[in-house]
Amino acid sequence: MKLLSDAAEYALRAVIWMAREPSTPRKVRDIAQATHAASGYLVKVLQGLARAGILSARRGSQGGFTLRRDPAELTVLEVIQAIDPIERLRACPLGIEAHGACLCPMHQQIDDALAMIQQRFAQSTIRDLLDRHTTGQLRCAALMIDTGSTQASQGDSMCPNT
Amino acid sequence: MKLLSDAAEYALRAVIWMAREPSTPRKVRDIAQATHAASGYLVKVLQGLARAGILSARRGSQGGFTLRRDPAELTVLEVIQAIDPIERLRACPLGIEAHGACLCPMHQQIDDALAMIQQRFAQSTIRDLLDRHTTGQLRCAALMIDTGSTQASQGDSMCPNT
Repeated sequence: MKLLSDAAEYALRAVIWMAREPSTPRKVRDIAQATHAASGYLVKVLQGLARAGILSARRGSQGGFTLRRDPAELTVLEVIQAIDPIERLRACPLGIEAHGACLCPMHQQIDDALAMIQQRFAQSTIRDLLDRHTTGQLRCAALMIDTGSTQASQGDSMCPNT
Repeated sequence: MKLLSDAAEYALRAVIWMAREPSTPRKVRDIAQATHAASGYLVKVLQGLARAGILSARRGSQGGFTLRRDPAELTVLEVIQAIDPIERLRACPLGIEAHGACLCPMHQQIDDALAMIQQRFAQSTIRDLLDRHTTGQLRCAALMIDTGSTQASQGDSMCPNT
């Protein structure tokens, strides 16, 4: 089970990277390189973020995409909702007439989980995630690799320390 | 964003319905009808549940699928994991070498959400969901329809009251 779609994940990575210098216009190819994304796919994601007012877009040699929102206020949830929204269950997803607008216990459980995810993502801002990068707060899911936790950031263009 | 795949949802619906009479062998077509699923698709889901030891399968006119596990012990998570597992992030999903087995803050956030979902689903048993059906605990996500909450269960073959 994949929690976020590729598009939502690319959107987050792009916004986090751009948040290092919010007022700097960025070319698609630079964002693509920094976030390990294919340009052709990424540009559609960036256009989606522009439609949602998270980025602005300007054509021309001095143009590019620019972050419009303050990273300290922009939440992880807002970025996700702009691209691949987490939707609560408003009616029986099976269209069972007898349920109408009610949710059976199984769908209540699923809806509760969706509410929980929304709430968690609404509590984190892009600034929060960026700050954790800066302070080297990488969590090792397995044994530490030879380079160690702070060194693991080196060579990664997403990381503000490189 | 869809939290559970169709297959995982069909698995849950089938198991919940079968849990009304756990020791009764059920034909695929009966489970399909009760759970509003296509037989051809459902049989693969049921086979997956059988491989996981949640159901047993027996051929023949007296055969069918039977629930092997006690609904009071079988968790929602176990059913999901048998069909479309929720996997924690063990390494950088992007394969960024510099991250190695570490998770950047964005993937930590996603992994935390996955952990939360796993925990929530592990806390509910099939019996819990079935009991809430029996006591008519339907949650109305919108205005009450004319039939009312308990009447909304009537005519729904998933509901133990019909």
